[in-house]
Amino acid sequence: MRTNLPVDETRLWDDLMALAALTDPDHPWTRRAFSPMFLEGRAYVADRMREAGLAVRLDAAGNLIGRREGRNEDARAIVIGSHSDTVPDGGRFDGTAGVMAGIAVARSLQRDGTKLDHAFEVIDCLAEEVSIFGLSCIGSRAVAGQLSEEQLNRSEPTGEILAAAIDRMGGDVDNLDDARRDDIAAYLELHIEQGPVLADQRRDIGIVTAIAGITRIEIVVEGRADHAGTTPMTLRQDALAGAAAVVSVIAKDARRRAAAGHGHFVATIGEFRIEPNAANVVPSRVTMLLDARAEERSFLEGFVAELQPLLQRAMSGTGTRITTFRVLSDAMPALSDPGLLDVLEEASATLGLSSLRMASGAGHDMAWFSRIAPAAMIFIPSKDGRSHTPDEWSEPGEIAAGAAVLYEAVLRLDKTLR
Amino acid sequence: MRTNLPVDETRLWDDLMALAALTDPDHPWTRRAFSPMFLEGRAYVADRMREAGLAVRLDAAGNLIGRREGRNEDARAIVIGSHSDTVPDGGRFDGTAGVMAGIAVARSLQRDGTKLDHAFEVIDCLAEEVSIFGLSCIGSRAVAGQLSEEQLNRSEPTGEILAAAIDRMGGDVDNLDDARRDDIAAYLELHIEQGPVLADQRRDIGIVTAIAGITRIEIVVEGRADHAGTTPMTLRQDALAGAAAVVSVIAKDARRRAAAGHGHFVATIGEFRIEPNAANVVPSRVTMLLDARAEERSFLEGFVAELQPLLQRAMSGTGTRITTFRVLSDAMPALSDPGLLDVLEEASATLGLSSLRMASGAGHDMAWFSRIAPAAMIFIPSKDGRSHTPDEWSEPGEIAAGAAVLYEAVLRLDKTLR
Repeated sequence: MRTNLPVDETRLWDDLMALAALTDPDHPWTRRAFSPMFLEGRAYVADRMREAGLAVRLDAAGNLIGRREGRNEDARAIVIGSHSDTVPDGGRFDGTAGVMAGIAVARSLQRDGTKLDHAFEVIDCLAEEVSIFGLSCIGSRAVAGQLSEEQLNRSEPTGEILAAAIDRMGGDVDNLDDARRDDIAAYLELHIEQGPVLADQRRDIGIVTAIAGITRIEIVVEGRADHAGTTPMTLRQDALAGAAAVVSVIAKDARRRAAAGHGHFVATIGEFRIEPNAANVVPSRVTMLLDARAEERSFLEGFVAELQPLLQRAMSGTGTRITTFRVLSDAMPALSDPGLLDVLEEASATLGLSSLRMASGAGHDMAWFSRIAPAAMIFIPSKDGRSHTPDEWSEPGEIAAGAAVLYEAVLRLDKTLR
Repeated sequence: MRTNLPVDETRLWDDLMALAALTDPDHPWTRRAFSPMFLEGRAYVADRMREAGLAVRLDAAGNLIGRREGRNEDARAIVIGSHSDTVPDGGRFDGTAGVMAGIAVARSLQRDGTKLDHAFEVIDCLAEEVSIFGLSCIGSRAVAGQLSEEQLNRSEPTGEILAAAIDRMGGDVDNLDDARRDDIAAYLELHIEQGPVLADQRRDIGIVTAIAGITRIEIVVEGRADHAGTTPMTLRQDALAGAAAVVSVIAKDARRRAAAGHGHFVATIGEFRIEPNAANVVPSRVTMLLDARAEERSFLEGFVAELQPLLQRAMSGTGTRITTFRVLSDAMPALSDPGLLDVLEEASATLGLSSLRMASGAGHDMAWFSRIAPAAMIFIPSKDGRSHTPDEWSEPGEIAAGAAVLYEAVLRLDKTLR
């Protein structure tokens, strides 16, 4: 345990574990948005906010907001946000570490009797994880005015529509525009890395330069179904052999590009299905999903543009062909505010913490706040890079160190922001 | 239509189409073993046998046998066999072409009043296709004395055991040994090729030298599940990338071996499944099934023995490894009798038909008869190599040409066999 940090490490850890314990007992750790267990978690978070001197309210989008007014009534707010919902069978840190770190900052401000010029808020954003409505970042989308009518009318399996579910969480969809914000001076977020880089490079704090853009592409390779016993090797059009060439070329090209020094770049084929998938039939068709993420938009575009000719070349001679190459979704990268990055880096250094500039390959509420305010994030280490699993782990001291960076940054920003 | 063949092409075709029409109406062409429709088909086959002058009986294993006695009571039988059951949603020729060709030969013998020294039989073997009991070649296994107690006690989904189902088909499992034969002088079988070679090489008749041995191997490649957005390319253990190397190496090695001139050789990965199969997770595990078939046993053994080091080499640097390499099943090749092959080749030439020596990559009843008697097969062309699909097709003249070869061979064998 570090004893020199300006936040209470033990209290932060205990609160975090108490929140995690509010889980579906058969599926630790599960507290999905819109569930009764989620409301229990929210009640716990609200109590901690109040204890830390924050005035608690729900906005029209169902975001839980704890606020401490500033001395200057005209000054905009400095916000620390994240989320308290989990994926099914998830971990105890994803999202919650950020919310509890925000509350720890409020507690330190309260303890020291610090007067800020700016208002200070902690926001527990509604439903950051992909919810039963098939949508993520519901609360932060609304804050950015980006939750559409179509999305509000989506229904989950039992028939409830999203608008009704937001109201059930305490929101007020009839007045959803009230949730839009133009009064945020800076948005900060702490999140577990969900990757292995900080641990691998032995750094305390990741200074998140951007949330990568994500392009998802469906690729279909077609050959011909033939009897696996009777069709000579020379007369085959084996879709799996063609698809193997596709996988190898993409993996090799992605490694080359990732090493090229244009920031974070990864490409993954995570879904892969062959037909007819029978022992004695030569595969006729393979459908795969390519997920490519990059910090620099132009770099991602270059990857996609140059991929098709590369694949055609690799597949020549296999007798198979790509019949579908279709972009299913395409999200732009979200860039952190350069000034905030400097402040977070200086705050880390002041506390004697090592840091590393890096991009986030995963999406976060910050991406939506970055549309309406200067925004930035920090990462703390994830053991073995594990996330969205009960194995998820960060050390108490690692979380407290991150919270301390936020505290330092808030103090600095209060002085420098206008 | 060829008018010079010693069999009645039109009658053969009409009988074949009439048998095919006895199908599950919703799934043409389906007449699975042990079904009521199968018994209707069998009644039709028995009627055609009787019309062709054959005495009809069912043996203890449920094989339908039509027999014409020979002049020499001590002489063993010349047998033409195949099967009348189909796969679900199969074709109109697989198996049935062989049974109807046998009956066409009987009809020609009857028409010409030919007296043979040997008895002549047509056998419609029970359940050649993989049946609801998960077993193929049930009747021909029994003829070879190779149907085990374990197999007889297997049950299908509604609970009936195989022994009861054989009795329901008219067999007599209590006296199953009566179905064993030691009185067969020669076994011949006509079958559609189920592959593209005859059509590709424009030959009328395939002289089948062997039924390939089949070795099936389960291969599991393991890596590590990681977040597809946050895990750098250099820190991944992508099981799909490792498996792609496996697929490519096997396809390349199989093509090389198939071209080496050691008879029929094919290798196929027909089943392939990745885990967890989610867009945003690096694949952790791939399970695949390799099906390798060869005419020469030693050649197949060489392939399997040399494969593992080859795969290890190809996967080095992918961070993944093969954790399972397990032979699930291993069937020896069944060789045709060389003397019978010569007779079939001469019979083809006499009729002005072009022929090609080739192996069968698929299994047939002949494999089991070859254990107890000299046995051999011929193939006739399959349009586009299609089989086990409603698209299955052979021309009337192609089937008649094959039946004519059998007729010529029977006449020759009756003179030469002792």
